[in-house]
Amino acid sequence: MKKLADIKTQFPEWYQDVVFAAELADQAPVRGCMVIRPYGYALWEEIQKNLDTKFKETGHQNAAFPLLIPQSFLQKEKEHVEGFSPELAIVTHAGGKELEEPLVIRPTSETIIHSMFAQWLRSWRDLPIKVNQWCSVVRWELRPRPFLRTSEFWWQEGHTAHETAEEAAQEARDMHQMYQDFMEKDLAIPVIAAKKPEHEKFAGADATFTLEAMMQDGKAVQMGTAHLISQNFAKAFNMTFQDRDGGLSYPYLTSWGVTTRLIGAIIMVHGDAKGLILPPRIAQIQVVIVPIFKTDNKEAVLAAATVLAKQLKKSFRIHLDTREYETPGAKFYEWELKGVPLRIELGARDIDAGVAMIADRLTGLKEAIKLAEIEEMVTKKLSDIQDALFERAKKYRDERLYQTEESLAEFGPRLQAEGGFYRVGWNEDTNALDALKAFGGTIRCVLPEKLSTRCFFSGQPSSCDIIVAKAY
Amino acid sequence: MKKLADIKTQFPEWYQDVVFAAELADQAPVRGCMVIRPYGYALWEEIQKNLDTKFKETGHQNAAFPLLIPQSFLQKEKEHVEGFSPELAIVTHAGGKELEEPLVIRPTSETIIHSMFAQWLRSWRDLPIKVNQWCSVVRWELRPRPFLRTSEFWWQEGHTAHETAEEAAQEARDMHQMYQDFMEKDLAIPVIAAKKPEHEKFAGADATFTLEAMMQDGKAVQMGTAHLISQNFAKAFNMTFQDRDGGLSYPYLTSWGVTTRLIGAIIMVHGDAKGLILPPRIAQIQVVIVPIFKTDNKEAVLAAATVLAKQLKKSFRIHLDTREYETPGAKFYEWELKGVPLRIELGARDIDAGVAMIADRLTGLKEAIKLAEIEEMVTKKLSDIQDALFERAKKYRDERLYQTEESLAEFGPRLQAEGGFYRVGWNEDTNALDALKAFGGTIRCVLPEKLSTRCFFSGQPSSCDIIVAKAY
Repeated sequence: MKKLADIKTQFPEWYQDVVFAAELADQAPVRGCMVIRPYGYALWEEIQKNLDTKFKETGHQNAAFPLLIPQSFLQKEKEHVEGFSPELAIVTHAGGKELEEPLVIRPTSETIIHSMFAQWLRSWRDLPIKVNQWCSVVRWELRPRPFLRTSEFWWQEGHTAHETAEEAAQEARDMHQMYQDFMEKDLAIPVIAAKKPEHEKFAGADATFTLEAMMQDGKAVQMGTAHLISQNFAKAFNMTFQDRDGGLSYPYLTSWGVTTRLIGAIIMVHGDAKGLILPPRIAQIQVVIVPIFKTDNKEAVLAAATVLAKQLKKSFRIHLDTREYETPGAKFYEWELKGVPLRIELGARDIDAGVAMIADRLTGLKEAIKLAEIEEMVTKKLSDIQDALFERAKKYRDERLYQTEESLAEFGPRLQAEGGFYRVGWNEDTNALDALKAFGGTIRCVLPEKLSTRCFFSGQPSSCDIIVAKAY
Repeated sequence: MKKLADIKTQFPEWYQDVVFAAELADQAPVRGCMVIRPYGYALWEEIQKNLDTKFKETGHQNAAFPLLIPQSFLQKEKEHVEGFSPELAIVTHAGGKELEEPLVIRPTSETIIHSMFAQWLRSWRDLPIKVNQWCSVVRWELRPRPFLRTSEFWWQEGHTAHETAEEAAQEARDMHQMYQDFMEKDLAIPVIAAKKPEHEKFAGADATFTLEAMMQDGKAVQMGTAHLISQNFAKAFNMTFQDRDGGLSYPYLTSWGVTTRLIGAIIMVHGDAKGLILPPRIAQIQVVIVPIFKTDNKEAVLAAATVLAKQLKKSFRIHLDTREYETPGAKFYEWELKGVPLRIELGARDIDAGVAMIADRLTGLKEAIKLAEIEEMVTKKLSDIQDALFERAKKYRDERLYQTEESLAEFGPRLQAEGGFYRVGWNEDTNALDALKAFGGTIRCVLPEKLSTRCFFSGQPSSCDIIVAKAY
């Protein structure tokens, strides 16, 4: 097997090496597209299972909307079409003929979903409408990176319509909060939850809320967004309802989504020189059992390992690796690369002594534990790893989150060389963007609380605090 | 609300009315496409949950392959491209430029998946490869009908590669059997599981196995297929592996799928004049609770209904309909239209008497049951409805399954007027197809056992038995 690139000095190469070597994804034969392999897709399925349960508990229902959207639909909302036009894939022929009107493959589904909302919505009694869709979308990408930036990616997109502006705002806040809880508790990734600056809003939204995480190279990943959609969308699609006073009103809309990009963040936040480290809550395999046997004790060891696997399967996601053509050493290497949180080794002598060896992927420590106590030990260790991953990522992030009144000329070179999050003041002058860009930086979000006094760019009094960082 | 068309005399109109009125699906603003609404998508989710569990228990893993396929890939397998060319949707522009090579939206994914298998496969130790994908595919459709025939439809496609021909044949048989079990036990739809005739095989397959069900108008629906894929696919994609003897071999392939068309069959097999009847095992709502209250007892009745709903939620999928702006009568009508298997009515007098009224959607019968026994009564009634739906559908089908030695001239007019399945002899002369077509008939499948003596078309000795029917 190929050695992984050095995580410290060649982070982007290390990332690609891990994606391919751990069999998470592969390059597809179509430019900019990826294939998500079973081991990577299982992560996405755990993410889906977790979020889908939360969505349904809060009254959202899944539905399926068409992949193809008439080009004219995107043009109904001016900012929307400007935002997405350069990235569209366009179907011009179908069924052996040229189409009268070209169709675009959905880059996102606001337009087609809103056209259906307009048909379904009659009275305030029909509100709220709260739907979600799991699907893939296409935004043409010239510099693809698996999971982070691909021409096709997988996501969920929630779309809701509400009677009042306050209800819609509450929905956007609730989903933003739900995402944060999920990312921190299940993915063990600390995030900064705040607003996007005006110039970074979703095309056609009134406000976009984001969640920003720091990778091990000090760069930011936008982990998800929730949008308060402008009433312009409702107006563009003639979406009205009879309100409680008998008049006609436009509803208030939201949309929100997370993508397979989350898998990229899991890799870049938690991985190490040996490869992936998966948070136990979303690992497809939480514990791998590697039986250690020779020809003369093979049957007895395999039988004991099978009993142990069966016992642990009741409470954990287990894989029993019985392959005979691989050495235990090769198996250890492979499951470490694949980030399985715990490894149990079981040999003939262990069985006689009533113990097993248990190795922790995060610390690398190995200890003997009594078979009689194995379930509670595995429970405890998985929980400890989940917590330790979060704490470690948070410490890393906090150590590189600088609150400063420095000017761009002062902190810019550090940002460029080392990455990190810079909490600085800003007066909302967009001339700052190009200056920032010269150091590879972008504005990630606008924080709810202002601690700064001066703008990092102009030196004038600041009107808000922002996070500046390099980003994927 | 609009009255449904008469199920006996206007079956196609009744079908469309039920699809739209029960809010299962809607026409999309793109020609031939549909929107699956939440109540319809919930059925698909139950189908997914059931099948996905079975797939995983038998060692299949989910993955995601690109939506877009280079046009040249389809051309690698001659029969395959001929089979699908007329139905393709083609992307010619993306990212603001004309593409060098057009891309097709997948009509099915054999070509792209096989190209990846070819990369992943090295040794016999990598076999079998068993993957599945849940996604939508596009095959351009000029005469769409929701769920039965749409330009975009949702499905699962399983794809496997095996070391030996026998293993691949076993896989195709196993999946064919799994589909039959699922359709009969979960969907309560009896199916005939057999082979497709040569001219109806999947484009590029050695053999296709089908499952055929009879609708209430006597027409057939193909419920799913499993294919033994020709080794031509492996050869076209250079898919080889080092075999146990150290030589290079081509693997043996299968693919198999079921689609959202299953929802169409559920409607057409089980529905009645009042609308849908959903098999309890896949109904999103198994029991709807309708509290019956007046202004002076509203709070007490709603409180009791809430307690009952909470109790039943532990074991069943429950909906408590607390809407105050609809009368109980309107609610009964709506939930009957939507096919909920059981309805519980709870009023003030019922509560005092310690009973509830329970109405069975299939028989229409209503009876009082003791609240103390409600859980076991609901369990029993749901199980009875599930069984009764299957028995009713089987009786209906068997009564219209004619084993006959008649010639086409004799049974053709009956087939044309009344539908039904005709088990007849055939000598595999494909000139029979056009003659059959004149009566609206097609060959649905070739049965494993031969009972006939003469060919329905030529009058010559028959070589096999087939099922002839009109079909969707």
